Amino acid sequence: MSVTAAQGFTAAGIAAGIKEGGGPDLALVVNNGPRRAAAGVFTSNRVKAAPVVWSEQVLKGGTVSAVVLNSGGANACTGPLGFQDTHATAEKAAEALDGHSAGEVAVASTGLIGLRLPMDKLLPGIDTAVAQLTEHGGEKAAIAIKTTDSVHKTAVVTRDGWTVGGMAKGAGMLAPGLATMLVVLTTDADLPAAALDTALRAATRTTFDRIDSDGCMSTNDTVLLLASGASGVTPAADEFAEAVRAVCDDLARQLIGDAEGASKDIRIEVVGAASEDDAVEVGRSIARNNLLKCALHGEDPNWGRVLSAIGTTSAVFEPDQLNVAINGIWVCKNGSVGEDRELVDMRYREVRITADLAAGTESAVIWANDLTADYVHENSAYSS
Amino acid sequence: MSVTAAQGFTAAGIAAGIKEGGGPDLALVVNNGPRRAAAGVFTSNRVKAAPVVWSEQVLKGGTVSAVVLNSGGANACTGPLGFQDTHATAEKAAEALDGHSAGEVAVASTGLIGLRLPMDKLLPGIDTAVAQLTEHGGEKAAIAIKTTDSVHKTAVVTRDGWTVGGMAKGAGMLAPGLATMLVVLTTDADLPAAALDTALRAATRTTFDRIDSDGCMSTNDTVLLLASGASGVTPAADEFAEAVRAVCDDLARQLIGDAEGASKDIRIEVVGAASEDDAVEVGRSIARNNLLKCALHGEDPNWGRVLSAIGTTSAVFEPDQLNVAINGIWVCKNGSVGEDRELVDMRYREVRITADLAAGTESAVIWANDLTADYVHENSAYSS
Repeated sequence: MSVTAAQGFTAAGIAAGIKEGGGPDLALVVNNGPRRAAAGVFTSNRVKAAPVVWSEQVLKGGTVSAVVLNSGGANACTGPLGFQDTHATAEKAAEALDGHSAGEVAVASTGLIGLRLPMDKLLPGIDTAVAQLTEHGGEKAAIAIKTTDSVHKTAVVTRDGWTVGGMAKGAGMLAPGLATMLVVLTTDADLPAAALDTALRAATRTTFDRIDSDGCMSTNDTVLLLASGASGVTPAADEFAEAVRAVCDDLARQLIGDAEGASKDIRIEVVGAASEDDAVEVGRSIARNNLLKCALHGEDPNWGRVLSAIGTTSAVFEPDQLNVAINGIWVCKNGSVGEDRELVDMRYREVRITADLAAGTESAVIWANDLTADYVHENSAYSS
Repeated sequence: MSVTAAQGFTAAGIAAGIKEGGGPDLALVVNNGPRRAAAGVFTSNRVKAAPVVWSEQVLKGGTVSAVVLNSGGANACTGPLGFQDTHATAEKAAEALDGHSAGEVAVASTGLIGLRLPMDKLLPGIDTAVAQLTEHGGEKAAIAIKTTDSVHKTAVVTRDGWTVGGMAKGAGMLAPGLATMLVVLTTDADLPAAALDTALRAATRTTFDRIDSDGCMSTNDTVLLLASGASGVTPAADEFAEAVRAVCDDLARQLIGDAEGASKDIRIEVVGAASEDDAVEVGRSIARNNLLKCALHGEDPNWGRVLSAIGTTSAVFEPDQLNVAINGIWVCKNGSVGEDRELVDMRYREVRITADLAAGTESAVIWANDLTADYVHENSAYSS
């Protein structure tokens, strides 16, 4: 289903020869209208890949007619020539699609940083992709954007006469302000760019922005939302926002569940916070504590490392009022030993940490992964 | 040599039975004067172990006559009873040493968080340690504070008639604002507490505060400097500061060199920064990037991950003016591909990263370690 679940969209995913090992590496998503409104959210890393710089400009116009995505190379830190490659990609897609304008073609890339893309393969690949565009191409497009992802990721919600669907790739570098994550969402709801922007920002703030696999932020993160208006329905703002959030949440969970080398998905809920910002800060600090991530990998409910992580934040709390539960057992009460840690059952993939700051009523949920020898192996061999 | 290199100090290291596996676990350092001035620097973690809370109070008086250190338990997150244990430890040492005051006995602990110390073994151990105090006890004291350290760490510098010596333990959790690191420095220079404090803060700021093994900050970090005045020499302030810094630098390097599971020592020098704060922020961001740490473990000069890490900071720089060298090869120039990465020789334990922000003349050096499967193994099995 993916990006072609909503009416008005066609997609394709093909092997252009960008990846050295072969396999699908080029995806194309086309909005056939009648409307071509769009919104986008991009990495907050100041070192931005060429396609991010390009697509940010495209999105300023609020109109996107097509998206070209490639795996096999990030086109980041490639200088002015890399930017020319992105530009040429958009020009080529506009030309091949006939009647499109390059200024309305977004581009997204993922893969190794610091390498030029093989344009002699990528550009002809666009012709191949255009030839294969279908209303059932969403699945193939989702497959073509995979890098170290073990599975492709798609999600769809259907409401009263309209649909939001999407695809995502990402398996590492998941961190604050999004992370090597390419996401394309489509909807046949009839909404202007401003409404899409509002819904998308609200959705990413509490979904993609709150997964933190390894604390690293990518140069290429891109989340796009395209609306065709093909359903003829204009949903209420809150109804639409909820649907976009549901799809984002589903995809975000899939990203965490497929993070490189992870053996645990860690749900960190911070409660009793004086503010949502405090809750997020504390959640992130816990999510990024390598010692805790190792302990959870070893199925060790090491709450001392949770307290250690909380203690490095500037959130409002008193150390002797902190409470921590792991999988429902309050192993730390009032900053000290609580229930017997032997009661904590750590056998399952999902680990739930609840940190109660006892300082207010705000809360936030951050998803993270454990730190494993597999993560080290996968990331120490990536480019060699 | 260690803490008994300077005149006026005696020390002991014994096995009190605190560690379950046996082995030395209790150290005692005594300042026999004539002066008993002292300064201390402690963890900036807001979740502080009981001995940190105690010793911070002791140091406010500027006088320390003895330090009791134990491995085998951090006495952190142990509530009011844990604080009573620290208090009882100081009282017992003061009594056993005869003529000392508990309010001038500092205490430091290291080991697992969230467990009470076995006081029935620790308190009798103090009697044993007092009985074994000698002017040659520095080595044994350094051995008794080890946890997962593979070697004990000591350093000494001797100047014109006076000496600064010290011991350290630490093998993980090394991070900003110090990290599970217990350090005791002694000197026979004749200086008041305020002068010690100035020298110690200046020294730790550019040594212990700039090693970052795994980004985690401990609840127990303690660095103490004790002066006996036994040499009768009062060195010039800058001369003394330089000696203290040299000992701290030596010990800090030993800590990084013995970090848990590490196979590489990574020297990150940030140059061309608009301010020292910028240089430190960028250095830390590089030091904590798990993806880069994995790549360096795999001997992969992955400069894209360095740029990714720089891009997450708020330092002054332009992405297209960044330059990065790895082991002397400028693999990234002007934010893009530079010299051939194949030229980088990664076979040795030390890896040198130079990040040039091209934004000024300030610089800083941060030391870090790679991320290895051994680190994961060691830290996923620590408390089980």
